[in-house]
Amino acid sequence: MAQEKIYSERTLLDFCAQTLLGAGLSQAGAEIVAETLVFAELRGIKSHGLIRLATYLERLQAGIMERQATILRERDEGAAALLDARNTFGQIAGFEAMTLALAKAAEYGAGVVGVKNSNHFGVAAYFAMMALKVDMIGFVLTNASPAMAVYGTRTPLIGTNPLAWAVPAGNYPAIVLDMSTSMVARGKIRNAALKGEAIPLGWALDKNGNPTTDAKSALEGTLEPVGGVKGSALSLIIDLVCGVLTDTILTGGVKNITDLSGPAKTGHFFLAINIARFIDPGLFKANVDRVIAGIKGMPKLGETEVFLPGEIEHRSTLQRRKEGISVSALTLASLNRTAGIFGVRPLQ
Amino acid sequence: MAQEKIYSERTLLDFCAQTLLGAGLSQAGAEIVAETLVFAELRGIKSHGLIRLATYLERLQAGIMERQATILRERDEGAAALLDARNTFGQIAGFEAMTLALAKAAEYGAGVVGVKNSNHFGVAAYFAMMALKVDMIGFVLTNASPAMAVYGTRTPLIGTNPLAWAVPAGNYPAIVLDMSTSMVARGKIRNAALKGEAIPLGWALDKNGNPTTDAKSALEGTLEPVGGVKGSALSLIIDLVCGVLTDTILTGGVKNITDLSGPAKTGHFFLAINIARFIDPGLFKANVDRVIAGIKGMPKLGETEVFLPGEIEHRSTLQRRKEGISVSALTLASLNRTAGIFGVRPLQ
Repeated sequence: MAQEKIYSERTLLDFCAQTLLGAGLSQAGAEIVAETLVFAELRGIKSHGLIRLATYLERLQAGIMERQATILRERDEGAAALLDARNTFGQIAGFEAMTLALAKAAEYGAGVVGVKNSNHFGVAAYFAMMALKVDMIGFVLTNASPAMAVYGTRTPLIGTNPLAWAVPAGNYPAIVLDMSTSMVARGKIRNAALKGEAIPLGWALDKNGNPTTDAKSALEGTLEPVGGVKGSALSLIIDLVCGVLTDTILTGGVKNITDLSGPAKTGHFFLAINIARFIDPGLFKANVDRVIAGIKGMPKLGETEVFLPGEIEHRSTLQRRKEGISVSALTLASLNRTAGIFGVRPLQ
Repeated sequence: MAQEKIYSERTLLDFCAQTLLGAGLSQAGAEIVAETLVFAELRGIKSHGLIRLATYLERLQAGIMERQATILRERDEGAAALLDARNTFGQIAGFEAMTLALAKAAEYGAGVVGVKNSNHFGVAAYFAMMALKVDMIGFVLTNASPAMAVYGTRTPLIGTNPLAWAVPAGNYPAIVLDMSTSMVARGKIRNAALKGEAIPLGWALDKNGNPTTDAKSALEGTLEPVGGVKGSALSLIIDLVCGVLTDTILTGGVKNITDLSGPAKTGHFFLAINIARFIDPGLFKANVDRVIAGIKGMPKLGETEVFLPGEIEHRSTLQRRKEGISVSALTLASLNRTAGIFGVRPLQ
């Protein structure tokens, strides 16, 4: 195995943005997508980081995703809006949608924005966390391609449809939850299959709906929803809000990011809640700090420190900002191959 | 065991309302609380049904809950509001809050309403489903008394904090999810303890944070959150939104419904989304019907019919409206004892 290399946040941001510019994105669009990819790396969510650059650009080259599109405000009145992403990057549409939701919340106390005809938008937490800078609470939903069976059935229909919440704190890092409605990500099972390893019971079902520890059978089957019927229902509702409410596509119709047969037809939903309409934001954040301090002082289950939701990712971000981001030889090769296509100088 | 008796919905509504009127509630307040209790019975959620009447009225008699209170609109601007329930019934505050959220959504496209200083409000789905009659989507959160440990700790701090979504359909029953963030309700473990039965692994932890099948040890410990760290984080966020955002109390401070040492200090959060601001509601409901029909036609896991979220409860409601609601001898005795205190004629 070749060794991994370390790059600064700045270097990776510039490299990704240059490559995306080369691929035909606008300056602003390239910067947003680059930022979300490096954001994922900083937080240690490599599954949604640099490795995705090649995948996104393959969709562009296949002609099934738009480099640039003027995102349409299809409906926009009061605290609610519906944007048409017109098949451009989910990150660009998501950024515009959450920006709008926050502006609406500043004016009306809350803002809800749906997005239709979008694509994979990366890490949901990125958009929820946009609320933190303006002392708001962010809540984000997206649908995804079929990966789980609706409870009582046995073929994939609903996605791992994640939800993300971001709640500001004062001196402590914000409380940030970004969870899929499946027990684990499909990537973990793919990794196990590649290595010929077994997976724990409870992660997935085979194509007949039986629990399995065989990673290959799992890939032909479905992921287990978190909490069985609860996760299944939650995923279905997220899909109805993101896919049907936005008038994009019926449940089961979203294409996987690697499926080049047509537009992905992803939908998203963003909610911003203006804390100041309920309580003084300073008091709110001080109270969240008191809750966090209380939890840190609770009797521990094990020897390790108690981490609040999002705290490990926050610490990872601080560390990687200081020490740099490690990039595996495999990812580096993928990045440089992609950059080469668009005439961008490879990372050394 | 004495046999159970069957009563009509109307008889039970009148009986509960009379008893609540006798206990000093307003006519409107008594009707709302009665309706939510019978709603739970109709849906087959007996844990939140008639058996709770005595518990609520014990709180009144202990002087730690208000019979009547003019609910204050502490803040109200645009699409957001904060109500102060002034320690009256959670059902009355919840009804007023969701009514307001729906009115705001009619005007602004979305409405968010928080409630402070409230009490147990019964079944969360009741309030989410208020959105269905006006072609909206309802989303409801409430906090509850400590029952689960935050992930990594081992003493109870966060509640089984439920969330409910209601999404209208056309010819099919609406999609309604009402789930706690714990694997199971504490009541199931209490029942097992009473019967001296073991509980399945995965339901609860003992006071040292170890998985247990002993119901008594479980009652001294904590409930398992759904999906481990995911359910723990979700519960914490629901608490921050319901308790801290509403400026009611810090996480861990909500009192159990049976704890008569003071006001419960419960908080709730209601969101209404006006479908018409996104898509024609008729088309939305037709599309939800198509999704449901698709799911009904998927390859089944077992022999039994596939049920959508809320469908079993809907069917139970239709059946019990027709055939009546069964009341156990134990519940009947509790109801009649309570009614007797307030001079209401017992159920025969």
